[in-house]
This record gives sequence, structure tokens and C-alpha cells, in this order.
Amino acid sequence: MIEQNGYIETIRQMGQLVFFKLRTQGKTWQLVSERPEIIAASKTMLAETPVRIIGKLVQEPTEEIVLEELEILARPKSAPPVEISKNNKIENLNLETLLQYRPLTLRNTKVRAIFKVQAEIVRAFREFLQSRRFIEIHSSKLVSTGTEGGANLFQLEYFGKTAFLAQSPQFYKQIMVGVFERVFEVGPVYRAEEHDTSRHLNEYISLDFEMGFIESMQDLIAMQEGLLKHIFAHLKENCPEELALYGASLPELGAIPQIELEQALFLLERQYGYKSQENDLGAEGEKLLGQYFREKEKSELVYVTNYPWSVRPFYAKKRGAGGSGSFDLLMGGMEITTGGERTHEYEELLQAMTERGLKSESFEDYLLAFKHGMPPHGGLAIGLERLTRQVLGLASVKQTSLFPRDCNRLSP
Amino acid sequence: MIEQNGYIETIRQMGQLVFFKLRTQGKTWQLVSERPEIIAASKTMLAETPVRIIGKLVQEPTEEIVLEELEILARPKSAPPVEISKNNKIENLNLETLLQYRPLTLRNTKVRAIFKVQAEIVRAFREFLQSRRFIEIHSSKLVSTGTEGGANLFQLEYFGKTAFLAQSPQFYKQIMVGVFERVFEVGPVYRAEEHDTSRHLNEYISLDFEMGFIESMQDLIAMQEGLLKHIFAHLKENCPEELALYGASLPELGAIPQIELEQALFLLERQYGYKSQENDLGAEGEKLLGQYFREKEKSELVYVTNYPWSVRPFYAKKRGAGGSGSFDLLMGGMEITTGGERTHEYEELLQAMTERGLKSESFEDYLLAFKHGMPPHGGLAIGLERLTRQVLGLASVKQTSLFPRDCNRLSP
Repeated sequence: MIEQNGYIETIRQMGQLVFFKLRTQGKTWQLVSERPEIIAASKTMLAETPVRIIGKLVQEPTEEIVLEELEILARPKSAPPVEISKNNKIENLNLETLLQYRPLTLRNTKVRAIFKVQAEIVRAFREFLQSRRFIEIHSSKLVSTGTEGGANLFQLEYFGKTAFLAQSPQFYKQIMVGVFERVFEVGPVYRAEEHDTSRHLNEYISLDFEMGFIESMQDLIAMQEGLLKHIFAHLKENCPEELALYGASLPELGAIPQIELEQALFLLERQYGYKSQENDLGAEGEKLLGQYFREKEKSELVYVTNYPWSVRPFYAKKRGAGGSGSFDLLMGGMEITTGGERTHEYEELLQAMTERGLKSESFEDYLLAFKHGMPPHGGLAIGLERLTRQVLGLASVKQTSLFPRDCNRLSP
Repeated sequence: MIEQNGYIETIRQMGQLVFFKLRTQGKTWQLVSERPEIIAASKTMLAETPVRIIGKLVQEPTEEIVLEELEILARPKSAPPVEISKNNKIENLNLETLLQYRPLTLRNTKVRAIFKVQAEIVRAFREFLQSRRFIEIHSSKLVSTGTEGGANLFQLEYFGKTAFLAQSPQFYKQIMVGVFERVFEVGPVYRAEEHDTSRHLNEYISLDFEMGFIESMQDLIAMQEGLLKHIFAHLKENCPEELALYGASLPELGAIPQIELEQALFLLERQYGYKSQENDLGAEGEKLLGQYFREKEKSELVYVTNYPWSVRPFYAKKRGAGGSGSFDLLMGGMEITTGGERTHEYEELLQAMTERGLKSESFEDYLLAFKHGMPPHGGLAIGLERLTRQVLGLASVKQTSLFPRDCNRLSP
């Protein structure tokens, strides 16, 4: 005897039999019954009826459960406006409809798989970092100053003061290096940008880590390589069916190739005649660079390093002539990570602020940590929705956020 | 030979020797040296100097590291305004000063221990629920409607619309029961309340879970009892030193006693002459009830059940005459959890909204899940800062939030 809870996806009467598909958390079962009371009940049932069933599991000719009992737990009011049971129907919905009916389209097995994979990415992220002595923190998302000078911030009134929604836990995770040496955070961040693209969300989940006592940027890169290796292995082990639904094959990670931004730009122009904005790969440049490394180096991932300090935040560590100890990581031709070494000397940080025209008084709390001693440190942030998108090869990050927020969308 | 990174807490020259205390992630080490260059260097060093050291570990007469090398990694600008190395000095700071210098006071070993314990609570929370088939979700914190009718919401402009900061992931976690059957979320929630007390924060971390296909409220209570048992066992195993610093002894959990609200109010009046507001224990009532159950039933925890439906949110399941399938859990005389069964039938939910004067059009996305079939379900939310406070026996939740937000505080 087997007992299952779930949702009836389809109902089909055939002669003296009735067949159901039952979607449970784990899998979709085929149910069958010849009992008159179940056949009678099936006639008034709608798709998505939640039920509890008891039956006998048979394996031949196909796996199915022969029903003994079927308990209807609630009565849907009407048939769903979208065919939840049909992967191809749901996949062919335009994004607008997919998101409009999100509470229902998420129930589709293939859509749901995205968020199972996402949950396992986050689990593996934490698991790996905890095994490397990182401690989880929760920093405030209501802040009095932006981390990058005040652009693109959502603003609200907070008991007579002006507060902003945090663009990143940057300052807090750096402060916490002084406390725990190594920290990580998984939490929402906010960007008030009007971009409405397949790469942008106005609220997304940032996977952040920050570590003290590093020798160079290469310590961060090595840590992230170990991290991604662990995440991919974890997904292969824990989500084989979900990955298969999307035909996703995760890259075998060795050392990820690195290229300096200047060389990358040069290469793109030489190979593809692509001319970018100054010091910026751009979405198209990222795509081409991803293509280049896939073809020439058999690598889905590539680090772009040594961004000019002038195009990075003030806290980025200066390296070489006009350069910085910072990097982006591209996966499948899209930036998924930004990170780097930070400036840890107080006077150097003040100097950097002056160069950017930032007033140090606005950053007093942050500076307090540096005034009283901070070690060399650095860290990075991975966009969870982007990583999920690239792992599964999806078209938009809006598909990888349960309830995405963009400049036209505040619900569901 | 032993190598360590950390922060110099104290420096003491004694004759031809110099002694340091070195605070690392794991512990505080005693360092000693008779090397002239290290003695010379020590004379210009300030507390909180980040260093890397190499030395020989000796155990007799006391454990210390005899230094071979000491590398100074940065130069603090001045001595800290608070004595980070002294637990009693930091403990005697008033809350205002403790929080004003948060980036430094968090470095104190005893303060830091709070957040190590907190990180392990969260880890154990996830670990337990994952082992019980719950899947982690991340829902949006920017919403278009409040979950409880619109009071106490922070408000902001969102691309020409009005958005609110989510008071709870309530609607989303319920919707997700239709997708994954069992879900949990760890994330910030927002309450625009002017309370400035030792029990309230305007932003706090809510540990939420929601589960489908329950028989009654007792399924939720049983799940939470298993959860708390696991958390306490995990803390005893992973944070013995941190718990010892606070003299915290975690309760051995058996079945937690339950009392209906009406009986609790009656008992408080009879035993203590305490008269509460109608249908509300109040902070003082919670304290007295906690005291009663500690003395009479040897239990630090007690469930208060069967709150009148009229004082619970509209989505609470009605039970009995005017009652509801909902509960609070008190620990050490303070509410740490609110939860209960939810209404899962569409028509019943519409009816509940009407009774509360809520317009169903404002809840269309939420209602969509119910219109098309939701099973009996319920869940709860634990306040992380409150739980941490009660575990360690602290005076205020402001001590258990890294960077607390209250009506006077938006930084650090």
C-alpha cells in the first residue's frame, strides 16, 4: 500500500476505468481506478484538485497506483487558465502570461524544477563556505548611504529620515571581516535601474562572501573555483532530473582562464570587429568573449581581470598603473560574479573617496572599522538568478526569480 | 610551528619580554617574544592591529606562542574608543554606545559569540527542515499590498507605483505550498511601528516555514518541537564556549505544554491578579505566564492556543465558536513564534476578507492559488533575534541584530 498527497493534474475516463495524473513533491504518478465511487467522483473533479490517495503500487505493464481511496481536500472553483500539466504549453506562454499567472505556472513540473535547482545552489553555496570557516551574517537592507555614491537607489521615508534600500551588503560584509575574518550572506539587494532586459532585475538575491588576510585577488579566485566546483557537483548529484529536463550539462571545472580587460577588448575587436564602450565589455561583448573561450579554450567560464580603477567602486584596491585588483566572472557569456580586493588602509581609503568626490562624513561607520585596523581582504558577489539562468540555459533572469521585480512589475 | 592571522588585542612590555593577546576567528592566543625587533615594533603598535604571526606553540607553564615572526598588515590610525578586549567594559556600555561603535564592539569576543550562535541557529533551522523535505524559497520584499490590511507598512515609490516593504512572506509561502508542498524562507521583514522596546525591531529576520496536507495545528506544533530540539542540540554541540560565556543552559525539550488563551488569561488573573487588554497577553502577561510554566511545569516554553479569530489575520483558519487554529509560542516569557492553520478553501477565504472589510481585488494574485486548489496547510514564523535573545538570556533584541533598525536608528 502506498499513500500520497498531491494535486490532480489530469483526469481521463475510459470505459469502466478512470486515470489520473497526480503531481506530488517528488514526482508525477499515474493513478487508475475501476471503483464506481471514484469514477463518479472524477466526473465533478477539476485539474489541480488537492487530494490524498491510498492505493496499490504496480510496476507492470507500466508503473501506476491502483486506487483504494481518494480523498478530495478542496474544491477548485474553476479550471486553471493555463494548462499546468503540459510543459510545452507552459513553455510557449509569453513571459507576460507566465508571470501574470505565476502562482499557477510555478506548479508546472518544469518551471518548478528551476527553483529546486536554485534552492540546491544556495544550499551548496553555504555548505562549501561553512566548510571553509565562513560564518553567515544578516545585514540591514535599510541604509542611510549608498555603497557606490548614491545612484540608482530606492528611497523611502524612515521615521522622518531618508532611508535607501541596500544595493549590496558591501560595507557590512567588510566590517564583519574585522569580526569573523570570513563571512557570507544570502539576501536581497536593490537596484533602481530602468533596464528592462533578460539580464536585469530590480530586486535580486546576492550570494556574497568576504574574506580577510588574503595575499592577492588570486585567493578569491581560488576560493570561488572551489565553490563553483562544489555547487556543480552538488547539482549533478541532487538534481539530475531537473537538469535533464533542461538538457543542462554542467561544465567540468579546472582552473578557469583569466584575461585582462584591455586584452579582452583588443581580442574582441580583432576577432569579431566588436568595438565596446570605453572599458566596458557590454552585454554583446560578454557574449562574444564567452563564445571565444568556449571555442578556443573549451571553457564556459572566464575571468576578466584588472578593470581600470576608475570604472570600479571607490573601495576597490588600486593595482598597477590605473588598474585594480578586481574582476568579473563570465559564465556562458554573461557576468555572474563581480569581486576583488578592497582597499584596507584607512588613509588610502580616504584618498580614494576624495578622488571620487565622496564626503567621508557620509561613510563614518564604515570608516570606523578601517580607522582601527583592517587586514588585507576581498570578496565577491554572485547573482543567484543569473547563475541559475546560466546553469539551466534559460532565456531570462525573470524566469529564475520566483516573483520577479522589474520596472513594470510589482506583483504577483 | 604555528601560523595565525588575527588582531592584536593587548600589548604588554615586561623587561626583556613583550606579551600580546591575539584574537583570531577561533580563539584568543597569548603571544610572547624576547626578540629585540619584535619588542621594538611593539612600541608603536596599537590595539586592533591586524597581523600574521609564526611561532612555536608551548603548553607549559601556560599555553602560549613564542613568536618567530610578526608581520603587521595595517596600521590603525588611533586606539579604539572602546576597550574591545575587555568583556566587562563592553558589557557595561550603555546600549547607545554599544550600537554607535558597532563595527568595533562586535569584535569583542563575547559580543561576537552572539552572532556565532545566531549563525548556528539558522544553520540548524535549515538543516532540520531540509531533512523533512522542505525547500528553501526567496520571495520579494517589495510588495503591492500588505498581508494584514495595510497598517504599519513602510512605503516607497517604485517606478511611478507605490510599493511596500513586506511585513512577512506570508502570501508567498502559502502560494508556494501549491508548488513544493513544504517550503521555508529566511529573510528580512519590516514593521513600521514606533515601538522602541527591548522586544521590537523595525527590520528583523523571520524564520518562516509553511507546510501542506496537514491534519491539524498539531502537525505544525510537532514539526516545531522537532525543529527546536534539533536547534538546541546543534547549539550544545557547536557552540559550547559561546553558550558558556553567557551561562546559557538550553532546555531539554519534551512535549511543550499548551494552554488556550482564555485559560491563560484566567490563570494570570487568579494567580497574579494580572488583568490584560482583551484577548491579548501583553508583554507583562507573557512574562508571568512564562514564570508560571517554569515554576509549575518546569518548562521554559509554552504554547498559547486558540486565539479568537477576530484578533488574528484574515487568513487564519476558524475553529470552534469564534476561535482559530492558531498559536503563539513563548520562550522564557516572550513570544518567539506565531503560527497556525490557514484557511484553504477559496469561498471561505473570500468570506473572511468580507468580514474584515478587505477588498478581494487587492489580493488577486494570492487568491489565484486558492481559486485553483490549495490543500489544508499552515505554518509559522520565528523571530530570529528574539530566539537568539532568549537562548542567551540577553536584555534586548537590539543586542541580537548585527546592525539593528529601530525608530531612532538607521545606522551603522
